[in-house]
Amino acid sequence: MHPPIEFWFEFGSNYSYLSLMRIEALADRAGVPLSWRPFLLGPIFRELGYQSSPFNEQKEKGEYAWRDMERRAAKYGLPFKRPSVFPRPALLPMRVALLGADQPWMGEYCRRIMLQNWVHDRDIDNADVVLAALAGLVDDPAAIVAEAGSERTKLLLRAQTANARDHGIFGAPTFMVYNEMFWGDDRLEDALEWAQACPAP
Amino acid sequence: MHPPIEFWFEFGSNYSYLSLMRIEALADRAGVPLSWRPFLLGPIFRELGYQSSPFNEQKEKGEYAWRDMERRAAKYGLPFKRPSVFPRPALLPMRVALLGADQPWMGEYCRRIMLQNWVHDRDIDNADVVLAALAGLVDDPAAIVAEAGSERTKLLLRAQTANARDHGIFGAPTFMVYNEMFWGDDRLEDALEWAQACPAP
Repeated sequence: MHPPIEFWFEFGSNYSYLSLMRIEALADRAGVPLSWRPFLLGPIFRELGYQSSPFNEQKEKGEYAWRDMERRAAKYGLPFKRPSVFPRPALLPMRVALLGADQPWMGEYCRRIMLQNWVHDRDIDNADVVLAALAGLVDDPAAIVAEAGSERTKLLLRAQTANARDHGIFGAPTFMVYNEMFWGDDRLEDALEWAQACPAP
Repeated sequence: MHPPIEFWFEFGSNYSYLSLMRIEALADRAGVPLSWRPFLLGPIFRELGYQSSPFNEQKEKGEYAWRDMERRAAKYGLPFKRPSVFPRPALLPMRVALLGADQPWMGEYCRRIMLQNWVHDRDIDNADVVLAALAGLVDDPAAIVAEAGSERTKLLLRAQTANARDHGIFGAPTFMVYNEMFWGDDRLEDALEWAQACPAP
């Protein structure tokens, strides 16, 4: 049995989009269990001294990153359209993702939210969008959205973000295999290979 | 005939090491002409507002990058030892690289310099090290080192660095195929594929 790959991601993070659309199928094919770890990137960036995404802070690198996203998406056969708002707030869908992390509907729900942001250019911090993403996946979407707004869920997401910081996470997507960190969509395959080669502890 | 891949690099840049050790063989196999473009990263970083390498500016990302370097080098079968000085000044060997860019000895010379920095942890901004790297590759190493110290060569390297800036280059290694930019060792294969797929202009 291989160790799990922890997938630390944010709906507002562009390279998280590329990984999120691919990871469930890739982990499945690799025989590596997948552990979803939604966390908030904003507080981490602020703690590191950024006002916004590093791609907004440095113009040259930011412009390059959008071109890189287009090429990478094409390489993976994924649709992509540069959104009109970046980074897009994602508090509500992130809270729902936290509730769904161990549920069978998690992957499909997350992909639907990501497509709204990175292809359809829609505001995703929005109950209608989240309800639509949950439709057909769960019995009672409204109950989940209500639970997402609870104090308990807010605290859990805050704790998960603090946990990310404790792991030394500084960006997204980040993959952890035990204490081995891999940063960036272009390290997803490496992280899976690491898990495959890793003996149980 | 495929368009050339321009390889913009610095001996002091860690990810440039990984690309430099691989690019000649990979470009050859891909049937893509290789155009060596040594340039100085320091002036570019200063213009972007960094005091040092971005890896030194942000501790978390910097520590991660060293671990990533170890893993990547192992993956490629390349030796690697984290140097005691980073980033290492490389003015003299860079000037020699500028003189050698169109010469048949360029690849082997550059690999020798890189190994001194990234495996043997030696100061490379040093005439003895540069002379040793040129030994057996050129008839008169001392003449080349003398030419590297000329006003003309200094101006040429400054012009090459200004050229990098004009291209919008913000880090190294950077690969250019016509006006298409690829940044980072992990995009080398993509850049070569781009050149292979690219019709002549």
